[in-house]
Amino acid sequence: MEQKGISKAVIKRLPRYYRYLSELLEEGVERISSNELSEKMRVTASQIRQDLNNFGGFGQQGYGYNVKHLYDEIAKILGLDKVHSMIIIGAGNLGQALAKYENFEKRGFKLVGIFDKNEELFGKEIRGIPVQSIEEIPDFLKENEVEIATLTIPKTEVAQIADMLVKNGIRAFWNYAHMDLNLRVPKGVIVENVHLSESLMRLSYNMTSYERDHKK
Amino acid sequence: MEQKGISKAVIKRLPRYYRYLSELLEEGVERISSNELSEKMRVTASQIRQDLNNFGGFGQQGYGYNVKHLYDEIAKILGLDKVHSMIIIGAGNLGQALAKYENFEKRGFKLVGIFDKNEELFGKEIRGIPVQSIEEIPDFLKENEVEIATLTIPKTEVAQIADMLVKNGIRAFWNYAHMDLNLRVPKGVIVENVHLSESLMRLSYNMTSYERDHKK
Repeated sequence: MEQKGISKAVIKRLPRYYRYLSELLEEGVERISSNELSEKMRVTASQIRQDLNNFGGFGQQGYGYNVKHLYDEIAKILGLDKVHSMIIIGAGNLGQALAKYENFEKRGFKLVGIFDKNEELFGKEIRGIPVQSIEEIPDFLKENEVEIATLTIPKTEVAQIADMLVKNGIRAFWNYAHMDLNLRVPKGVIVENVHLSESLMRLSYNMTSYERDHKK
Repeated sequence: MEQKGISKAVIKRLPRYYRYLSELLEEGVERISSNELSEKMRVTASQIRQDLNNFGGFGQQGYGYNVKHLYDEIAKILGLDKVHSMIIIGAGNLGQALAKYENFEKRGFKLVGIFDKNEELFGKEIRGIPVQSIEEIPDFLKENEVEIATLTIPKTEVAQIADMLVKNGIRAFWNYAHMDLNLRVPKGVIVENVHLSESLMRLSYNMTSYERDHKK
């Protein structure tokens, strides 16, 4: 499939299309028109047609889109047609919550290891996976093929641990620590930052500016 | 302060400025030039000057920016100069992890209640706050002023619970459920969605497209 021409803006919308299509599949919907999808997603129908034309999701006049086909095509583009193995570094509250979240596994993200530096957690099992010492990581990565490292550790520890992980072959980070890890890692290492505090600040900003605009 | 002219793009960058300035404050840095900040944040110095000029953060030739002043001004714009009270609905793994996260409180987001529908959790204390039944929420909101409801509940329960919360005066949602809550609530109710699965999909997309581009 030709993907060269897909703009960043379209790519950004893909996970949302994927989510809506997966809901339609669950509901047993086999086909949908751009107008129906438009109403559900609150995106204009012409935007949907433009977006989906990018990756062979051609709707047919009087038929609409084949939900399963579109879903599979988007999955391929997003790399969700393959299993990605993942480890979590930091078995604190957030790390454990993510480890327990079964939906990630359903999407093809397979948790294979959990690591922490807190001895008290060693051996504790989360979904059948025992927490191991961070010191075990180099050996673990020699024996297991791991693509993604999820970091739920304090920001002061990120630099050192990320460097060690890169050295041992990790090529993708899902980073919850409050630092811009993408500024540190070598080119070719992929970073997706999740900065929850910044999300909360955006919420606060929107509340504040709404109040300001509606007080007068 | 005049804020009318601030573009959305600048607003989006504010939490990141705020984070860097708070780190500088912690390090005891009193002033910083746009060039130094540029190097730290990997944003061009001229972009920084443009951005910060928007809200009275005028750097002085040969002096740079006063870190504390800038930090306070940005805090005001983001609404972080006030305390925002918050409840969490859903005391599962993620809800508990968020409840235990002390940094939010440091930023002025004060957790005042935690609710769940699982009886086994009732009375369990998280940071001194007992989990209560969701049925208690209407009374709780009559007795307590609450601005933000954090939703860490299954998506199938969101519609009904969000409607109840809006009816009882909640005006802002921090929504972790996999549905676009902003499409449901009335105008004037602020929603910030955190869709972790979509973040993971973006990571997967970036890994996949990097591999595709570098295979040839």
